[in-house]
Amino acid sequence: MLRGFFEPESVAVIGASRTPGKVGHAVLKSLKSGFKGRIYPVNPNAAEILGLRCYPSVLDVEDRVELAVICVPAASVPDVLDECEKKGVRFSVIISSGFSEVGRRDLEERLKGRKLRIIGPNCVGVFDPYTGVDTLFMPEERMKRPGKGHISFVTQSGAVGTAVLDVLSDIGVGISKFASIGNRVDVTEVELLRFLESDPNTRCIAMYLESVSDGKKFVREVRRCKKPVVCLKAGKSESGTRAAASHTGSLAGSYRLYSSVFRQFGVLEAKTLEELVDFSKVLASQPPMKGRRLAIVTDGGGFGILAADTAENLGFELPDFGSETGKKLREVLPDYASVSNPLDLTGDSDSERYRSVLSLVFSDPNVDGVVVIALLQIATLDEAIVDVLAECKVYGKPFVVCASGGEYTRRQVRRLERLGIPVFPSPERAVAAINALRLFSEARK
Amino acid sequence: MLRGFFEPESVAVIGASRTPGKVGHAVLKSLKSGFKGRIYPVNPNAAEILGLRCYPSVLDVEDRVELAVICVPAASVPDVLDECEKKGVRFSVIISSGFSEVGRRDLEERLKGRKLRIIGPNCVGVFDPYTGVDTLFMPEERMKRPGKGHISFVTQSGAVGTAVLDVLSDIGVGISKFASIGNRVDVTEVELLRFLESDPNTRCIAMYLESVSDGKKFVREVRRCKKPVVCLKAGKSESGTRAAASHTGSLAGSYRLYSSVFRQFGVLEAKTLEELVDFSKVLASQPPMKGRRLAIVTDGGGFGILAADTAENLGFELPDFGSETGKKLREVLPDYASVSNPLDLTGDSDSERYRSVLSLVFSDPNVDGVVVIALLQIATLDEAIVDVLAECKVYGKPFVVCASGGEYTRRQVRRLERLGIPVFPSPERAVAAINALRLFSEARK
Repeated sequence: MLRGFFEPESVAVIGASRTPGKVGHAVLKSLKSGFKGRIYPVNPNAAEILGLRCYPSVLDVEDRVELAVICVPAASVPDVLDECEKKGVRFSVIISSGFSEVGRRDLEERLKGRKLRIIGPNCVGVFDPYTGVDTLFMPEERMKRPGKGHISFVTQSGAVGTAVLDVLSDIGVGISKFASIGNRVDVTEVELLRFLESDPNTRCIAMYLESVSDGKKFVREVRRCKKPVVCLKAGKSESGTRAAASHTGSLAGSYRLYSSVFRQFGVLEAKTLEELVDFSKVLASQPPMKGRRLAIVTDGGGFGILAADTAENLGFELPDFGSETGKKLREVLPDYASVSNPLDLTGDSDSERYRSVLSLVFSDPNVDGVVVIALLQIATLDEAIVDVLAECKVYGKPFVVCASGGEYTRRQVRRLERLGIPVFPSPERAVAAINALRLFSEARK
Repeated sequence: MLRGFFEPESVAVIGASRTPGKVGHAVLKSLKSGFKGRIYPVNPNAAEILGLRCYPSVLDVEDRVELAVICVPAASVPDVLDECEKKGVRFSVIISSGFSEVGRRDLEERLKGRKLRIIGPNCVGVFDPYTGVDTLFMPEERMKRPGKGHISFVTQSGAVGTAVLDVLSDIGVGISKFASIGNRVDVTEVELLRFLESDPNTRCIAMYLESVSDGKKFVREVRRCKKPVVCLKAGKSESGTRAAASHTGSLAGSYRLYSSVFRQFGVLEAKTLEELVDFSKVLASQPPMKGRRLAIVTDGGGFGILAADTAENLGFELPDFGSETGKKLREVLPDYASVSNPLDLTGDSDSERYRSVLSLVFSDPNVDGVVVIALLQIATLDEAIVDVLAECKVYGKPFVVCASGGEYTRRQVRRLERLGIPVFPSPERAVAAINALRLFSEARK
């Protein structure tokens, strides 16, 4: 079990440093800022760091140490692991780099075959907002941490991981568990997949992979997994494959093979980093989509057209509204708005118009899911639109919101995302995201 | 000539209103906040609005009126135009809707065949940060205005236009001229194209079109145009085409035809709203790309791989660095970094490492353009990276930056964009944007 990585009672930071800017300092600071358990800095040359008593070796800690976070130079890591094993530490995260990715396979071999479990090396480690475990060496002022949520993210690239966390936090999306696995000498994406499958807070598993550690096991695990899995495969091209080898020592393998395995076994493939985030947001928050009939509601005609273009291109149907719905829509809409799908509420909409229209559209039996475009720049639309959109959750149908703009829009988007409503900055991305949900729902039928 | 729309000496707002939230109030407020010329509100029921003396009719204004912005109900617009002509007004923007887009072709006919020029109806009008002309009825607190820059934007959708302006302002990108043309009873995208071609501040022309007003003239004009033109064509699908008809009364026509005309005559097609913005940013700021040899420099391995995958897929070459460059790179890079393309400076890079590496990479004769990935979350990279990137302009080679993250990153991105350096939130978008530049450069050869 991998629980000890995310819910340890005590953590030692081996290679903790007094010097701001150093990894061993940043990791300790990150942990200290949120983790509720006991923290033990280890550094033979310091008595105290960040107000915590410091130990010369992990063996000197009087308490039980459940998780060791290791930031010492690569050459010292094997010895540190020996000490950890002696101490009875069961879980370790090795942040240090300088192993197979720089040709030091010999050094990497010496990490293997141990009793304690290892995440890494050459990674940024783990983050869990529920427990406050945070081994990321990116300072808070550079990179905000997301709050509690339902996406879990496994990544072979620390930079991809931290950039995504920073973006998620910025837009107000929470996560469940984050693991950067680096060269994965021990814990692999396959084992994490199984672990996250049984994690009650995880509703969607996002992965950035340069390769899989074991093809057969990967296939077996994704077939078993009932939760949606979204994968971004890097190293599709010749130069990308070459780069992957020197990045995490990965043999990237044929992209075509990956892509067809993904398709065959119900893994959603994200073609870009933005899709990885977009798809995960919808899959972690929305109920299944029971068919392919999509309604589009908008206050900007052009956005409605762009959404319709994308929707048809991706295989959605844009049905006419039922005659009953149509009649009622006619009553609540102004004369100059026409009842059709996409439904253009026009640029003088207020929250009340959205409310009455959305209740009719969501209740229409012809509609399986909804894209709501709400351009918030118009003067008639006040912040009450957030409540109106939140109310739409009661219909039990999946929906996504598109809102495109600057500061004011971003504030409202954060409020929406915190309420579990996925929002996208362009009509094309909104439709592509709900399409991922449809594909997942179809595959699971 | 259309200059009077963007540089009028005096503007009348006909249908100016005292009531906040009303279009005629918002337009007057927008104008007043930046326009340096003389402003005349026209409303028979008010003596003064927003501190400006109000006139019962445009005919009562003692001064010459160069531009009239019209916000009265559709039915009154023809009479207002009669008065404007009598007054000798030469330019008018009709914000009012309720014409062909709602089936009132009869009313729209009555706008035509006049001496004064018309932008609209059913539009949000014009914006020019150089002169302060601003007829947008979106309040400042909802939608910030971009500063002075070099992109001009012509749009058939007011909502698309205002959302894009809001986004541009948020990321720190300026514009030259903005025109929302709505039902375009008079001034068309073709005429604007010609006008913008001779506008010294315009370096790139972006267009959102549901249809072109006259295919032959459009082709003639884009062939003549030496500046890059980027087009997003909406109404590609059946339902999108239907929606376009009720939006701006457009006959959207065959998308395939548009797409092939674009390709044949050197118009860059943006497939999504984000591409429209992304491509325009690069085309308005970067010198031509003389070949297809791209260098990728990164501080995050995964981002480099994703960029390389996209680059190869789009037809770039990722050359090895010249032997001279390679030798020098080896000297400035730490041992654990390997000299290859993509070039991974690794996650402990500082600005100095970027500086020395970039000067070598940009000077390498094997390199035609550069994608610089700078993930700013790492503690070693401080704000000096902005200056380092700005210095790269001296090499005269095109480059784009990728920076992905939240608040801190956004602050630095704004600084970069204000310096004319285009920044993108994902590796795929960064590479696609510089590819647009390459395609334009190739087409112009």
